[in-house]
Amino acid sequence: MSPHRVAVIGASGYGGLQTVRLLHTHPRLRVTFLGGHGSVGSHWRELAPFLDTGPDLHVAQPDPDVIAAAADLVVLSLPNGRAGTLAPALLERGLRVVDLSADYRFAHLEDWRQIYGGHGGAVERTDAGLCAEAVYGLPEFNHRAIATARLVACPGCFPTTSLLALLPLLQEGLILSEGIVIDAKTGTSGGGREARQHLLLAEAGEAVAPYGVEGHRHTREIEIQATTLGRSLPVRLQFTPHLLPMVRGLLATVYGQLHAPDCSAAQLTSHFLDTYRDHPCVDVLPVGVYPSTKWVRQTNRALLSVATNPHTGQVIVMAALDNLLKGQAGQAVQCLNIMLGLPDSTGLPLEPFYP
Amino acid sequence: MSPHRVAVIGASGYGGLQTVRLLHTHPRLRVTFLGGHGSVGSHWRELAPFLDTGPDLHVAQPDPDVIAAAADLVVLSLPNGRAGTLAPALLERGLRVVDLSADYRFAHLEDWRQIYGGHGGAVERTDAGLCAEAVYGLPEFNHRAIATARLVACPGCFPTTSLLALLPLLQEGLILSEGIVIDAKTGTSGGGREARQHLLLAEAGEAVAPYGVEGHRHTREIEIQATTLGRSLPVRLQFTPHLLPMVRGLLATVYGQLHAPDCSAAQLTSHFLDTYRDHPCVDVLPVGVYPSTKWVRQTNRALLSVATNPHTGQVIVMAALDNLLKGQAGQAVQCLNIMLGLPDSTGLPLEPFYP
Amino acid sequence: MSPHRVAVIGASGYGGLQTVRLLHTHPRLRVTFLGGHGSVGSHWRELAPFLDTGPDLHVAQPDPDVIAAAADLVVLSLPNGRAGTLAPALLERGLRVVDLSADYRFAHLEDWRQIYGGHGGAVERTDAGLCAEAVYGLPEFNHRAIATARLVACPGCFPTTSLLALLPLLQEGLILSEGIVIDAKTGTSGGGREARQHLLLAEAGEAVAPYGVEGHRHTREIEIQATTLGRSLPVRLQFTPHLLPMVRGLLATVYGQLHAPDCSAAQLTSHFLDTYRDHPCVDVLPVGVYPSTKWVRQTNRALLSVATNPHTGQVIVMAALDNLLKGQAGQAVQCLNIMLGLPDSTGLPLEPFYP
Amino acid sequence: MSPHRVAVIGASGYGGLQTVRLLHTHPRLRVTFLGGHGSVGSHWRELAPFLDTGPDLHVAQPDPDVIAAAADLVVLSLPNGRAGTLAPALLERGLRVVDLSADYRFAHLEDWRQIYGGHGGAVERTDAGLCAEAVYGLPEFNHRAIATARLVACPGCFPTTSLLALLPLLQEGLILSEGIVIDAKTGTSGGGREARQHLLLAEAGEAVAPYGVEGHRHTREIEIQATTLGRSLPVRLQFTPHLLPMVRGLLATVYGQLHAPDCSAAQLTSHFLDTYRDHPCVDVLPVGVYPSTKWVRQTNRALLSVATNPHTGQVIVMAALDNLLKGQAGQAVQCLNIMLGLPDSTGLPLEPFYP
Repeated sequence: MSPHRVAVIGASGYGGLQTVRLLHTHPRLRVTFLGGHGSVGSHWRELAPFLDTGPDLHVAQPDPDVIAAAADLVVLSLPNGRAGTLAPALLERGLRVVDLSADYRFAHLEDWRQIYGGHGGAVERTDAGLCAEAVYGLPEFNHRAIATARLVACPGCFPTTSLLALLPLLQEGLILSEGIVIDAKTGTSGGGREARQHLLLAEAGEAVAPYGVEGHRHTREIEIQATTLGRSLPVRLQFTPHLLPMVRGLLATVYGQLHAPDCSAAQLTSHFLDTYRDHPCVDVLPVGVYPSTKWVRQTNRALLSVATNPHTGQVIVMAALDNLLKGQAGQAVQCLNIMLGLPDSTGLPLEPFYP
Repeated sequence: MSPHRVAVIGASGYGGLQTVRLLHTHPRLRVTFLGGHGSVGSHWRELAPFLDTGPDLHVAQPDPDVIAAAADLVVLSLPNGRAGTLAPALLERGLRVVDLSADYRFAHLEDWRQIYGGHGGAVERTDAGLCAEAVYGLPEFNHRAIATARLVACPGCFPTTSLLALLPLLQEGLILSEGIVIDAKTGTSGGGREARQHLLLAEAGEAVAPYGVEGHRHTREIEIQATTLGRSLPVRLQFTPHLLPMVRGLLATVYGQLHAPDCSAAQLTSHFLDTYRDHPCVDVLPVGVYPSTKWVRQTNRALLSVATNPHTGQVIVMAALDNLLKGQAGQAVQCLNIMLGLPDSTGLPLEPFYP
Repeated sequence: MSPHRVAVIGASGYGGLQTVRLLHTHPRLRVTFLGGHGSVGSHWRELAPFLDTGPDLHVAQPDPDVIAAAADLVVLSLPNGRAGTLAPALLERGLRVVDLSADYRFAHLEDWRQIYGGHGGAVERTDAGLCAEAVYGLPEFNHRAIATARLVACPGCFPTTSLLALLPLLQEGLILSEGIVIDAKTGTSGGGREARQHLLLAEAGEAVAPYGVEGHRHTREIEIQATTLGRSLPVRLQFTPHLLPMVRGLLATVYGQLHAPDCSAAQLTSHFLDTYRDHPCVDVLPVGVYPSTKWVRQTNRALLSVATNPHTGQVIVMAALDNLLKGQAGQAVQCLNIMLGLPDSTGLPLEPFYP
Repeated sequence: MSPHRVAVIGASGYGGLQTVRLLHTHPRLRVTFLGGHGSVGSHWRELAPFLDTGPDLHVAQPDPDVIAAAADLVVLSLPNGRAGTLAPALLERGLRVVDLSADYRFAHLEDWRQIYGGHGGAVERTDAGLCAEAVYGLPEFNHRAIATARLVACPGCFPTTSLLALLPLLQEGLILSEGIVIDAKTGTSGGGREARQHLLLAEAGEAVAPYGVEGHRHTREIEIQATTLGRSLPVRLQFTPHLLPMVRGLLATVYGQLHAPDCSAAQLTSHFLDTYRDHPCVDVLPVGVYPSTKWVRQTNRALLSVATNPHTGQVIVMAALDNLLKGQAGQAVQCLNIMLGLPDSTGLPLEPFYP
């Protein structure tokens, strides 16, 4: 069987780099087009002297006709507001699209506009229909819809981590929909590859600090999906991201109030194991073993652990993943696999090199 | 005026090192005795080749009579369970004692025994009276009692951070006493200087992980003091520490449910400013400015910031400090200052060298 | 074809962990015995909760007869001085052995004794014959001998890096055999997994320091092999290792005096490319591109770059690799591959996930 | 005595920040003017929310007349090529100037132009006279000249470290002037505070790499001063900087060939102790104790150690300092102290907080 042909647009950022790297050793997918903006004309080898081999391609302008001639599927790894200017033309030409940005994560364009409007610049989006059609690319909860989707909107790394922790509780109505806290900790690569002062090693090294404490834009994405996929009462929650002095990795510590305060960690762990039994990219740890981001570094695996506080009736779910793989490009490849009828983890690393 | 003479017992650990370093440049205190166990006989210069100068002393066995001849005050920086074997004899000889361990943090010896009993080995403590007498050394809330105390039990770094964030809310009854979450992040020096595998750079570097999620021993210390100093209903809370890949620094992100959900961050910040107005070692940041541990690195200052979530009625208090100074040895020196009638911050650095 | 059966002795250290991890996804090798000492009785899953799957084995005492029944080849990952007590019995039983320690790196037992004698304790080694027989496991320069060896002594991470940089120069007599400097920088995982104070994150974080400046024990290993494999005059050199605040990675910056001072970096690079043309695990970068350890992180690849200083007639060779893979377990698996007639890089990752 | 008034120009970069911080607690100097470009109009408190207090000043355009009215001395912390456009006007108005850039480090303007010409843009410098007059601000070797200078050019962090290691050897003719190697390791704050991709934590974290291996611009600065201050034959050397994953700190490992190969480390250490006996900001460690950058973090102290290799006749000098203090702003304040007849270390921290 000849491999499926994939175009990667936005190849020089971390999302693009990881995607190209994953596809390079993927048994059934091959990169046949590299698109970009600032790096147009550069050969891949110049962008990535650290990859031994790689696609023998130059970065080109993302012309939809050229892409349609070269590829069957497209991964868009572009700044927020940019995917929306390219995806419609790609879909019209029969390509299937996986988008890493926030552009199609909201079924209602208006929700997107309220949160990201300021980032889209003067561009007036008119693709409300595509927003409604796009499938939220969280494989463990949207597997069937992803399989047949034309357009998949991959969740961000924070929503992925948070939802994997929350949805098993919400779907069964095990916690109150109020008072939920998501305290998240991320490595600095989550902020992207563009040079910004607060992401310098001299600034972020040997330090931890919260940011976006009031109304971080991922809050709404999590709330909407927690409500929709969680089949719950409308969920409102507090999401607090923290920047940590490490390259990769994301840990979310999620707190909720149990309906049944005497529900044990063992019972809840059993429920989590059931939920993720058929999902090779999510594992649940035994009671009392808590996940380290190092345990999932450079893998497409999420690790969960559940604890309870019998004095307060709270449940604590800890979820760790690699923000650039299961939180971004790995999940995109997982979605491509599903769209093509391949096993979820095809071509995806699940085992870390520790330490 | 001749300086006050201080004995430091346990000089080779981080608590002892920081204490000696601080006293070395303190205008009114001088180290006149160095006590220890494993390092007995070593000259200070061998223990600390990185200090240009320092006390011209050898480490000696902590004999109470020798200490009483050499010093007026004693700082104990010993493993939990060891201070209790030394403090009574020192107090009998008229010395005033500041203890960095957990041994005197509980007014009821039984509380201590339940939590730390397993650590104290075969030693049977009989100093319940001293436990009841000891003053909890949180200067911002126990200033007057510290001033006249014979025995001060310095809070650990986690309780200090947590209580500075919580007490202004509890004292005024601004939050529910239920559902409180303390999500804490610490550098690895908080685990001490003894070699342990999980604190190796190869293990803790490039990683974040929670630990002690269920019933960490600091939970009770925080609950008891939050109840006592907070003049509240009995407080029960969830405390979750996380180990971060950095040397120093502690950040606690504290979540509570407001009684008045429309209470604004500005109003709460104003209340925090009032609370800490006369306390030079605690500062409150403007609304929307969140503390980084880097802003307090190698200082005796705690930085607080208050935010609210109007959708959920939650308050989020962020508190940052240096776990080895304001969270340990710096606070001990602050207590010594108070015991001697000196200004709190005498000899203590308050300004960081950024970055 | 059924896979070759491999025993790994010393499974809980970094060398053992990496070996088991590599073999777990190797297409032709399978771990069929796990041996150890402190961890005897533990199931692999307990030792490595971070590996999704792994060998379904308990750690056992390394009994030669049991090993001989279970495996065809053995990887020894033991402290220096311990392999020498086990290897003879394994070889007698017809097993082929790859040793990660220093025990068989010296053809003359006396050389080993002078350097490591203090570490071997009271054990008196009598296996001088095996020392003479053992093949130094540097595949790029000993490929043929490794292919037929019964006993392979894998070089340490420092000698591997240093020799890959030096040998192309020495073999052609391009540099003086005097005045060579190897300035090496390593992550802390090179120091092993045993808890030692100077490897704590609190000590090694945010710091760089040299160690073993005078007569580090790797100096003689490098000198002897540089002389033997370099077909040179006796080489004497200065080797200075430095401990860096990172988990993995090793960079050696090697300085030599050129015989022909006008020899250009381009000419030398061309010679290096020739030397390593048929070796998939070593790459040479274009002139002016210098290697980062991040470019080889978690791969079995070494990256070299050559520069010259026309004012001083010096050549500077930079060599980067992952100390736990190409510098340790990866090289062991590369040797196993060669011993079995497989391509060098079978089952070994060569492409990093950047960043 | 009223304090001396100091203007700091370029207050928002790391050099400026450190200078203002140091002067804030200096007993005899006070910041009375803050100049800048991008940050004009900002209050100091906004630039540095992490400083508890600080000068109650807004950043202003650096108008020479205004500066002359406000200050007696000026510290220029500007990008290379900018000091040369401001210093002449300041000197004309009778101010004394300490410049942190490279603009006045070369006695011959032509040398500067060859190295930095590309950085100075279209500006044509005509201040060759000032270049000749400026004193190279290395206090341990130019103390007398600094005391009376109008214009002091502070060495960069790399030249400071390298020269402190080399000059004691060169001045006594103890090493050959050929074959010298300086292998330097720096934290990323040495690259400044401007956002650049290679200084991102995600790029520089968990990595070490050399840069500027061929003809780094600091090479000539070191060579010229080593020749001039070393009273030597013309020195040519290889200087190789490496970027390390840490915030602060600089270590230079310097290699030279001894004239007398049997010269011992003890003899050389004794000579170094003599050289630096009267200099409070440089210390020499005992033989066999090697400096860590952590031992000088956030101090104005340099630590040196000398080792020898009797097999090769080489000497190895290790020098560690804090690149932002003794390597930059601390040295500037040390120069100010000397210019004002104060003891060198007035207001400068010499003792670290370890770890």
